[in-house]
Amino acid sequence: MIERIETNARMSQAVVHNGTVYLAGVVAADLTQGVGAQTKEVLAGVDRLLALAGSDKTRILRAEIYLADIKDFADMNAEWDAWVPAGAAPARATVQAPLYTPEALVEIVVTAAV
Amino acid sequence: MIERIETNARMSQAVVHNGTVYLAGVVAADLTQGVGAQTKEVLAGVDRLLALAGSDKTRILRAEIYLADIKDFADMNAEWDAWVPAGAAPARATVQAPLYTPEALVEIVVTAAV
Amino acid sequence: MIERIETNARMSQAVVHNGTVYLAGVVAADLTQGVGAQTKEVLAGVDRLLALAGSDKTRILRAEIYLADIKDFADMNAEWDAWVPAGAAPARATVQAPLYTPEALVEIVVTAAV
Repeated sequence: MIERIETNARMSQAVVHNGTVYLAGVVAADLTQGVGAQTKEVLAGVDRLLALAGSDKTRILRAEIYLADIKDFADMNAEWDAWVPAGAAPARATVQAPLYTPEALVEIVVTAAV
Repeated sequence: MIERIETNARMSQAVVHNGTVYLAGVVAADLTQGVGAQTKEVLAGVDRLLALAGSDKTRILRAEIYLADIKDFADMNAEWDAWVPAGAAPARATVQAPLYTPEALVEIVVTAAV
Repeated sequence: MIERIETNARMSQAVVHNGTVYLAGVVAADLTQGVGAQTKEVLAGVDRLLALAGSDKTRILRAEIYLADIKDFADMNAEWDAWVPAGAAPARATVQAPLYTPEALVEIVVTAAV
């Protein structure tokens, strides 16, 4: 049994299988913002997709964070740290990698328990 | 129970556990080709490994795509979109990252249900 | 049921769910070392976290390796190949991506069966 959420011809925003949900990489819609505001929007997008899958941010297993420029590490972390639930922080990895357009500054890929 | 497929001293091409198959990053064998042809070869390699694991492209949970140059995004997508089964597109994330040799233009890492 | 290991306000070093453990990206503590010594320290860190999760290196499903400079591929592989158990090599993907600080040369993200 595989459940797909917000599926189009290219990708699904989330796929659920065997008690685990695999989110697509989430980027901000408003790319005119700085990295802090983009991170906040990305995390709201993660919340939204987790809710659609029957999960929430207390059940994240791992997050992989891509920053277009690693010098944004502290600004991204400020938003991240404010968002992560006390005692339920996931495993995490962060690296620098340019995204599909130079205006996109942060992308987060989440795996969670449903 | 862990099943390993095409295992050598460094890596396996696929590992099956608990109803999920984890593929290695797949790159093209013929690196003289452009990104479109390399993507086509990578996707054929994904098909082959999924078949060995008892899965197929209708059961992919997530794909992580690494492009050596993000300017190849559209050319990669043209092949990807033609390959993805209608209604069964996986979660996906794409970033730019140089691969083990400059001639390798695209690498795809797939997680699928068996 | 989700088990978190070495959890602080930002992240956990490992999270166990449904028979699978998701490690955080592991980097060396001593970043004055070259890539070979850093890789050795990273792999010792992976061993340590897997043990805390009730797993070990014979049960790794996939490893994603980030090198700050892909020219270190051979030096990283020398340590990796010496560490991987015969017949139990995981699926693997390796790309170049700068890490949180320029002195960090290698980061490894492991998923394993418990």
